[in-house]
Amino acid sequence: MDAVLRQSKSMCPFLKKTSPATLRSLSTSAPARQASPGGGSMSNLQTIARRCPVMGKALAVQTAKSSKMGLGGVAALGAIRAFTGKAGSGKAKIHTTRSQEARPLEDTIFGRESGGFVLFCFSYPQHGKPTGQAGHHHKNAPKFDYEEFYNEELDKKHKDKSYRYFNNINRLAKEFPRAHMSNKAERVTVWCSNDYLGMGSNPQVLKTMHETLDKYGAGAGGTRNISGHNKHAVGLEASIAKLHAKDAALVFTSCYVANDATLATLGSKLPNCVILSDSLNHASMIQGIRHSGARKMVFQHNDLADLEAKLASLPSDVPKIIAFESVYSMCGSIGPIEGICDLAEKYGAITFLDEVHAVGMYGPHGAGVAEHLDYEAHLNGRPRGTIMDRIDIITGTLGKAYGCVGGYIAGSAKMVDAVRSLAPGFIFTTSLPPATMAGAQTAIEYQTEYQGDRRLQQLHTRAVKDSLNERDIPVIPNPSHIIPVLVGNAELAKRASDMLLDKHDIYVQSINYPTVPVGQERLRITPTPGHTREFREHLVSALESVWDELGLKRTSEWAAQGGFIGVGERDVKGPEPLWTDQQLGVDQVVKEMKAGGPVGVMEALLEREREETARAVASAS
Amino acid sequence: MDAVLRQSKSMCPFLKKTSPATLRSLSTSAPARQASPGGGSMSNLQTIARRCPVMGKALAVQTAKSSKMGLGGVAALGAIRAFTGKAGSGKAKIHTTRSQEARPLEDTIFGRESGGFVLFCFSYPQHGKPTGQAGHHHKNAPKFDYEEFYNEELDKKHKDKSYRYFNNINRLAKEFPRAHMSNKAERVTVWCSNDYLGMGSNPQVLKTMHETLDKYGAGAGGTRNISGHNKHAVGLEASIAKLHAKDAALVFTSCYVANDATLATLGSKLPNCVILSDSLNHASMIQGIRHSGARKMVFQHNDLADLEAKLASLPSDVPKIIAFESVYSMCGSIGPIEGICDLAEKYGAITFLDEVHAVGMYGPHGAGVAEHLDYEAHLNGRPRGTIMDRIDIITGTLGKAYGCVGGYIAGSAKMVDAVRSLAPGFIFTTSLPPATMAGAQTAIEYQTEYQGDRRLQQLHTRAVKDSLNERDIPVIPNPSHIIPVLVGNAELAKRASDMLLDKHDIYVQSINYPTVPVGQERLRITPTPGHTREFREHLVSALESVWDELGLKRTSEWAAQGGFIGVGERDVKGPEPLWTDQQLGVDQVVKEMKAGGPVGVMEALLEREREETARAVASAS
Repeated sequence: MDAVLRQSKSMCPFLKKTSPATLRSLSTSAPARQASPGGGSMSNLQTIARRCPVMGKALAVQTAKSSKMGLGGVAALGAIRAFTGKAGSGKAKIHTTRSQEARPLEDTIFGRESGGFVLFCFSYPQHGKPTGQAGHHHKNAPKFDYEEFYNEELDKKHKDKSYRYFNNINRLAKEFPRAHMSNKAERVTVWCSNDYLGMGSNPQVLKTMHETLDKYGAGAGGTRNISGHNKHAVGLEASIAKLHAKDAALVFTSCYVANDATLATLGSKLPNCVILSDSLNHASMIQGIRHSGARKMVFQHNDLADLEAKLASLPSDVPKIIAFESVYSMCGSIGPIEGICDLAEKYGAITFLDEVHAVGMYGPHGAGVAEHLDYEAHLNGRPRGTIMDRIDIITGTLGKAYGCVGGYIAGSAKMVDAVRSLAPGFIFTTSLPPATMAGAQTAIEYQTEYQGDRRLQQLHTRAVKDSLNERDIPVIPNPSHIIPVLVGNAELAKRASDMLLDKHDIYVQSINYPTVPVGQERLRITPTPGHTREFREHLVSALESVWDELGLKRTSEWAAQGGFIGVGERDVKGPEPLWTDQQLGVDQVVKEMKAGGPVGVMEALLEREREETARAVASAS
Repeated sequence: MDAVLRQSKSMCPFLKKTSPATLRSLSTSAPARQASPGGGSMSNLQTIARRCPVMGKALAVQTAKSSKMGLGGVAALGAIRAFTGKAGSGKAKIHTTRSQEARPLEDTIFGRESGGFVLFCFSYPQHGKPTGQAGHHHKNAPKFDYEEFYNEELDKKHKDKSYRYFNNINRLAKEFPRAHMSNKAERVTVWCSNDYLGMGSNPQVLKTMHETLDKYGAGAGGTRNISGHNKHAVGLEASIAKLHAKDAALVFTSCYVANDATLATLGSKLPNCVILSDSLNHASMIQGIRHSGARKMVFQHNDLADLEAKLASLPSDVPKIIAFESVYSMCGSIGPIEGICDLAEKYGAITFLDEVHAVGMYGPHGAGVAEHLDYEAHLNGRPRGTIMDRIDIITGTLGKAYGCVGGYIAGSAKMVDAVRSLAPGFIFTTSLPPATMAGAQTAIEYQTEYQGDRRLQQLHTRAVKDSLNERDIPVIPNPSHIIPVLVGNAELAKRASDMLLDKHDIYVQSINYPTVPVGQERLRITPTPGHTREFREHLVSALESVWDELGLKRTSEWAAQGGFIGVGERDVKGPEPLWTDQQLGVDQVVKEMKAGGPVGVMEALLEREREETARAVASAS
C-alpha cells in the first residue's frame, strides 16, 4: 500500500499536497456503502478520484472490464452459499474477490448513480433498434420465467397460511367505531383499528384539516428542500419536540420510514457502530438495522441481563445504539425503559425508543410510556432528569392514536439535523400534505391538554379484559391497552376472524405468522373510547359463541397443559396495568368494587366518563 | 456436506421425509438476508430449524457463544477495509469468517426479530437497576462522543456547501402559483414546485377530499391488512391500473417507498437477480437496489449500447431487472424506452420504469412518456402491443402532477400480488388516509379526461425556454417540461436562488451536489399552467438581472469554451420537444410564427389557452 501511495503521490498534485491524516479520513467515511453487498462500496477518496480527469478514465476502463465478467461463477457461488449458509471455496472464491474489487466502481455519488462521472445528461428518446451484439445465441437460449416465479412465491404463502386477504373496511367518522363493508348498507364494529382514541374523527382535527385544505391545497408539491417546507412542517415539528421535551424533531412520511431511515443512517455513519435490538422489534427497525450494514446483536425480549451481557462484550468506545419499543404491539408487553437507560449510560450507548403504540396513550400529556413513568414530574412541568429526558431518540407516529398519517423522530438538535442532512429516505421524498401536518399538530395539542380519551380507553380495555377473563377466554396478560386473545393455530384464527365478521358484524383481524410465531396466532383487540357498553357486551358474547362453535382452547385448558406465553400459567401473577387506579381517577370506586360493592359500578363509572367525554368534545368543537 | 446430511437424516424425521429438491429450495429462498452484511443471513431451512425443539436449542447455544466474541478484530477489519476498499487478510479474516458463521443465528423471522425462538412475550417494566457485570472497567473507560460526531458530519456538509437551508414556502391554493413566506404578508411566485399542473388546488380534487374527510375521517387507522384497507384503496388502485393499461396496481406511502420496496423485494427474491441501473437513477431506486443485495450493474445514462454490452455479458436464464426513468428530473432528459424494451425482450430481462415526473404530463391520458410514444394508439383506446404495454413494472407518484401524496407500482396481477405479499415497506405501514386516496383518484381521472393542463404546461415551458435562449441565459437542452438553467458553481447557485427570493420575490431552489455533480449546479425551473405571461416576463427579467449582478456565465460564454452538458455545444442540435406542435394543437400557429408572422402570436395563443382552461375548470367544479 505504501509503495502504491508513494507512486501515486509522485504523479498527482492532489495526493502530494494532502496530509496522510486527511487521506485516511477521506478513505473511511462511507461505511454504509462498504457494507452493502452487490451494491458495492466507495470511499470519499474514490468519489473524488472519479472526478479527476486522469483517475476518472482509469476507473472507467476498470469498470468496463469488470462488468464484462461472466456471471456463471458468481451464480455458482450464490448457490453454494445458499445451501451451506457459508462462503464457498475454490473457483467460486476467485469470482467473489473480483466482484469485490469491482464494487467501488459500480457505486453512487450520494443520491445519484455515477457509472463514470456524468458530464452530459441531455438526450432524446431513441426509437431505433440497438445494434445486436452477442445476440444470436440469446434468441433461443432459455429465459427466466418471471410470472411462474411470482406464482411459486404466492403458492408458498397460500400453503403456509400466511397469504393475506384484505377486508374492505370503511370506517365512518360520524359512527365511530362503526364501518361499512364494500356493500355500503352492511355495518360492522371495528375492534382492531389503531385509531386508538378516535382522533381520526375528532371535530377539531377535521376542522383544521378542512381549513388548511382550502387555504393551502391538497399536496405539498415538493421535497422539504424544494418547495415542500412550510409553516405546517415547522409547527408540527415544534409541537412534537415540545411533547417529548426534546430540542428538535423531524417528520417523515411514516414511522416505518422514520425508523428505517434513522437507524440506517446512524448505523452506517457512526464508525463501527453496533446496534443492539430487542428480539421483538418491529419490521421497520429490523430493516433499518439491516440497511445500515452495522453489526447487529439481538437481545432477548425485555431481558436486561442478556442486553448487559452483550453490551459488556463490546469495547467501551465503540458507538452503540440500543433499539427497542415501549409498547410491543402484538403482545402488549412494555419495555424496561429505565433499566435500558441505565445500561446505555454505563456502557456508552445511545437509546432509540419506538413509542409508536404509546404516543397519545400514556403520560399526562400523551408523550408515551417514557413520560408515564414519571407521571407526577411531567404533570407538574418538570421534564428534566426524567426517564424521557434520558432517552436519546424517540420515534412516534401520527397515524395511530393521533388519527392521521406520518411518523417522526425527536432528540438533540444536532442528531436531528444530521439525520435531516444525510438520510435519503427523508431528503428524496415529497413532504406530507399541509392539511395532514396541520391536522396532526392539532391532534397532538388536543391530546396534550386533554386526558379523557386515553383514560376512557384504558377503562374500556380493563372492562373487556375482565369480561374475557371471567368467561375463561384466553387473554395474553400485559400491562397495556392491547388485548391479544390467544388462538394458537393459523387456520382457526382466520376462521374465528371470519366468523366474527360474517355472523356477528364484528371486525377483528387475525394475526398469524410471520407477524407472530407459529403456534401463537391470536386475535388482537384494541378498544377505544367509543367502544361503549353495548359494543363491549356484543363483542364478549360473540367471542364466547365463536369459541364454542370452533372449540377453541379456553384459559383453563391452557392451564391444564401448564400454561403458554402467560395464559393459564400458575405461578405468574398477571402484570398490573401501567395506568394505575389513581392515575385513572378510579381508585375509590375500584376499592369499593373489590370490597364486594354493588354490581355494575364499573359500568356505571364508564357511562359517566363517556358522557363527560362527549361533553368535552362537543364544547371543544 | 453429504456426510452431515446423512447423519442429520438419521436423527431427524423431518429431514428424513423431505426430498433433496425441497430441502434445496428451502435453503435458497432468502437471498436478501444472505447478502445483508452484519445484518446476518438465514435460509427458510434455518428458520424451520429454529422452531425444532432439538435444533432450536443447539442454535441458541451457538448464538450465545458467538455473541460473546470481542469486537476488536472486527473493528480492525473494518478499518483495513475502509482504507484499502478491500477485504483484509491475516487475523482479521478469521473474524470475518466467524462473524459470517454467527450471522444465521442473529437474524429474523420475517417481520419480527427472533434471537432464539420467542415463546414468551409478556413482561412488565423493570425499574430495578440491572446487576452489574464487567461494569467496573467501563466506568472510566473512554466512551464515544455522539454529539461531537453529529457536529463533524454537519461541518462536512457546511464545508462542501451541501448543507441545506429550507425555505419556508406556503403555497396558496387560491393564488396558485403564489405562496407566502413565514411572514404571511410576504408573497412570492413559486417556480420550482412539482405540483406541475396545479392539481393541488384543483376544485374537484379538493371537493372530493372535503367530502371524504367528513365521511371517513382523517386517517386510515391501520395497515392494509389490519383495518386500513377500504374502498378508497380499491378505487385508486383500479384507476391506476386502468391508466397504465395493466392488470393491477399497488399504492405505497410514497414513490420513494414504492421504488425502494419493489426493487428490494424483487431483487432479493429472484434467484441470483442482476439489476441494471441507469447512471442517473433516482436515490429511491439506488437504495432499493442496495437493499435487495442483488448484483448491480450501472449503465451509462440513456446508453443503449452500454446496456446491451452489460446484458450480453450475463447468462440468458439469470433474472434481470432494467431499472430506469422516463423523465430524469434534474436535467429533463428522457429515457430510450422502446430501445430498452427491445433489449429486455432479447435478453430475457424485465423493465422497471419510473414515470414519477411524467405521469399526468405526457400521453393523451397522462399515463406518462411510455403512453406518449404511441399517442394515436392510446388516444384511440388501443393499448395492446404499445410500448407502455411492453413495460413490466411502471412506478409513479400521486404527489407531483396529481397534486396529492403517495406512490404506486402497476404491472401484472401476480407481480403486484407478490410485492403486496412480501414487501415489508408495504406490509408494515399505515395506509394513506381515505381523503388522500380519494383525492388522488379524482386527480388521475380528471387528467385522464382533460388534456388542457398538460398542454398549457408545455406551451409555458416552451415560452420560458425560448425567452431564456433569446437572452443568452444557459438552459440545459432537453425534450421535456423541466428547465435546468446552468450556473456551474455551488455558492453562486445558492446566491442566485437567494437573490431571486430576496430581491425579486421569485422562489427557485438551487440544485447542488450531491443531487447533481459538482460543476453542474443549476436552477431548476418548472412552469405550470398557472404561470401566465406576467409571471413569465417577471421571471425572465429577474434572471437577466441576477445573471448580470452575479456575473454568471452566459450561453455564449459556455460556447466559447467548447460547450458543456449540451449548453453552447456547436454540433449538437437541441432535441425536439416530446410534445409535438401537432399534439399541442399549435402546428398552424407555429408555422406562421416561424415564417415571420406577427410578433406576439405565441403569447396570444397562450392567453387563449389560459382562458379556455379557466372555463373548463370553472364548469367542472
